[in-house]
Amino acid sequence: MAHALGLGRRGMGKCWPNPAVGCVLVQGGRVVGRGWTQPGGRPHAETQALDMAGDLARGATAYVTLEPCAHHGKTPPCADALIAAGVARVVAPLPDSDPRVSGQGFDRLRKAGIAVTTGVLADRAALDHAGFFLRVEQGRPWLTLKLAMSLDGRIATATGESQWITGPQARLAVHGLRNSHDAVMVGGGTARADDPSLTVRGFGNVPQPARVVVSRFLDLPLLGTLARTARDTPVWLCHGPDASAELQKTWDGLGARLIPCALRAGRVDPASLMAALGQAGLTRVFCEGGGQLAASLLAADLVDELQVFSAGVAIGAEGLPGLGALGVEKLALAPHFALVDVSVEGGDVRHVWRRAAATG
Amino acid sequence: MAHALGLGRRGMGKCWPNPAVGCVLVQGGRVVGRGWTQPGGRPHAETQALDMAGDLARGATAYVTLEPCAHHGKTPPCADALIAAGVARVVAPLPDSDPRVSGQGFDRLRKAGIAVTTGVLADRAALDHAGFFLRVEQGRPWLTLKLAMSLDGRIATATGESQWITGPQARLAVHGLRNSHDAVMVGGGTARADDPSLTVRGFGNVPQPARVVVSRFLDLPLLGTLARTARDTPVWLCHGPDASAELQKTWDGLGARLIPCALRAGRVDPASLMAALGQAGLTRVFCEGGGQLAASLLAADLVDELQVFSAGVAIGAEGLPGLGALGVEKLALAPHFALVDVSVEGGDVRHVWRRAAATG
Repeated sequence: MAHALGLGRRGMGKCWPNPAVGCVLVQGGRVVGRGWTQPGGRPHAETQALDMAGDLARGATAYVTLEPCAHHGKTPPCADALIAAGVARVVAPLPDSDPRVSGQGFDRLRKAGIAVTTGVLADRAALDHAGFFLRVEQGRPWLTLKLAMSLDGRIATATGESQWITGPQARLAVHGLRNSHDAVMVGGGTARADDPSLTVRGFGNVPQPARVVVSRFLDLPLLGTLARTARDTPVWLCHGPDASAELQKTWDGLGARLIPCALRAGRVDPASLMAALGQAGLTRVFCEGGGQLAASLLAADLVDELQVFSAGVAIGAEGLPGLGALGVEKLALAPHFALVDVSVEGGDVRHVWRRAAATG
Repeated sequence: MAHALGLGRRGMGKCWPNPAVGCVLVQGGRVVGRGWTQPGGRPHAETQALDMAGDLARGATAYVTLEPCAHHGKTPPCADALIAAGVARVVAPLPDSDPRVSGQGFDRLRKAGIAVTTGVLADRAALDHAGFFLRVEQGRPWLTLKLAMSLDGRIATATGESQWITGPQARLAVHGLRNSHDAVMVGGGTARADDPSLTVRGFGNVPQPARVVVSRFLDLPLLGTLARTARDTPVWLCHGPDASAELQKTWDGLGARLIPCALRAGRVDPASLMAALGQAGLTRVFCEGGGQLAASLLAADLVDELQVFSAGVAIGAEGLPGLGALGVEKLALAPHFALVDVSVEGGDVRHVWRRAAATG
């Protein structure tokens, strides 16, 4: 199952709105088939593994990281494929919470005489599929927030200088995070200040995540990197209802996708934003700031995971804070997170935190 | 030598202005004596170890973490004691940079026919004795700065609530740090806001570090914890030349030691402060903030080590920053530190950084 989960993770960020599933077929102690959900969401992991196994699938045990689907979507049900191939046993950690599947995949397998075992590495699988489950159950994607800051929590000097606070190894880790998410998101201020490309670099020719910019008025540079490359790699602009029709038309002409969102307290409402991204099919979103967008997502309790990179430099209180105002007066009411991992990335520290009561 | 260094560290924070030395005597593969500089700086490590070994010291090898002293101070020279005891060989990492010793201890041993080996674990010994060397060479103590902050670098909410940002294990680690320093130092704002005791707790009946408060005008609570306990555990007040004579007299009457410092840009000059503390005999100072004092020490390039504790809570930009203004405009000119250690303390992350070109 650990092997299947590892395979499944290869599809992360590349098969939304489908779950990134892994499948391993074992026959007589030998792996005879392996598969994972392919870019774009098809073929499914089970189909891939069964194709590889061929006749060896008969009597095999299938380790699948999620309940096999039981409905006809764009592909025939995987449960039926496993039955047709003569698989003897299916091991899966979790039922699918998609109402079109939930329990029906397992039922169909059992009715065909296949032994079904569940619960194996369920916590790990729940975490891997958390974005998929969140979208099905709450209509919004999993949100990972990156904070790459100086020792004292700053992301730029008073004069706005922000490049290379963290080192090359931390930046590579950030590209790895982009690569495992469906979309990379920044606020309009960051898009204006940094002219970022927001692409995955250093991981070969991988499918690129969508690039999401949150900008109430769409006042973004029309000659910037995102504008120039919107036809090559998707650019989605989440804007307020009061963004000018002219700018909407211009960006549409540049190839960007326009996603209207509601306002709240004069900004794009974070709940409306996340719902719109879930509606658009995203299951995992990686937010890279800036401080205002990060703070509004945190204040709305929409951040599932924090990826914090601390660099060995002190910028001081005049510097730009990594998090904007949260409106927190009582410490007990501040957003709390539990530590899940610490590592050293070159000369920087990376600490990973998840919501104290994380979904999934 | 590693064992001797470990013994030496037991004296850290307790034997200033003397170095915290360790000594192990080995005879025929057996440890026959162990010692470390005792609280107050006497007896010295070598004397302790020789006393324990008695006649077994004859022909033994002495592992000493610093060159044995060659001058008559408050104790007779340790070099002479080693010679008198008939030690055959002395292994030491480093010469003492105190001009009364420097090389003369080794010379005296060699002249008496004792084999002297140096350079063993010299880097580690240089770090352990860095405060002692800094005071001898530059007239100031080693400075460790603690920053215990939220994920976004804040030490209190907008309303000033600051207690228990980090958890009990991180707080115990802070007491351990106090215990290995000669003095614990805070700014006047922290003394007023938190009414701290600044004592070592949780480590048994250990000698307490001096408690240093930096306050230009001595406008500190006269009924606070420090004022009430100044006769039990030393309180040193570093003040500006313009602190009122009345308040100086009052604090003197309460049992505090008054240390006048020069001003710079309207605050106690950090260089004058550190020089005064070196003059007073301190070799290792542990600064626990607040943000203004921390920033002034950093800006003056006086911070040798940073002990950063990051807690899993986000406070937001309205919160009190852990570091005040540094006056940094160019990132390249900001104070840079190199990572030396990362650990998990309960639910918090502890990261230790040292000046990129650390003294010692």
